[in-house]
Amino acid sequence: MHDEVAVKAWRELSRQYAALSCALESALQEQHKLGMSEFEVLDRLVGAQDCTGLRMQELGEQIHLSQSALSRTVARLEKDGLVERQLCTSDRRGVFVHPTDAGRERHAAARPTHRAVINTTLASSQ
Amino acid sequence: MHDEVAVKAWRELSRQYAALSCALESALQEQHKLGMSEFEVLDRLVGAQDCTGLRMQELGEQIHLSQSALSRTVARLEKDGLVERQLCTSDRRGVFVHPTDAGRERHAAARPTHRAVINTTLASSQ
Repeated sequence: MHDEVAVKAWRELSRQYAALSCALESALQEQHKLGMSEFEVLDRLVGAQDCTGLRMQELGEQIHLSQSALSRTVARLEKDGLVERQLCTSDRRGVFVHPTDAGRERHAAARPTHRAVINTTLASSQ
Repeated sequence: MHDEVAVKAWRELSRQYAALSCALESALQEQHKLGMSEFEVLDRLVGAQDCTGLRMQELGEQIHLSQSALSRTVARLEKDGLVERQLCTSDRRGVFVHPTDAGRERHAAARPTHRAVINTTLASSQ
């Protein structure tokens, strides 16, 4: 790729990411009292096939947060009663996180907002 | 756009942004002792048509940083002697930032790394 084409692609990627994450952060916070990262964690947990939840490590890989940022996000969700952490006794590879009933409800309420913001923002920024 | 298509597009955008910003942060830090945001500020300043530099507000819009994050980034660059801030006497709309000679040199040295990382990462993640 020519250098200037590459830089243009990177700037466009940054612009779209900033526009969308900013719009999601505002809408989810105002309408559902959830930060974007908190919603993303709930979204992955509710969507997970495995009913035991997801390992912290898997979550981190899926939502691209550093270990410390992920820990803070999960701790906030736990404090609000939206997720639970459980040490897996049969699997030494770590801590599982799963949504509580309240977490599933909050996710179900916020999901249409999340989807609508993505649709609107991607449509207007392309 | 169908909801699941929209979510897939958003997740793909997040994945690409995370991969590229993480690769840029590491390479620029290791090879040139510059954070990604610091490089982005220098890149816009050196590329600016106007030799008086750019207003803080213009910079913020171009690199999608919050006002406080941009202030911290510019303060770090100023402390390292790479940019200077100047209050514009004829224009009350604000503070101008422009690169010093050392800033232009550091930018010229880091630019090929920045372009190469973008080329490599975009090519491998698409």
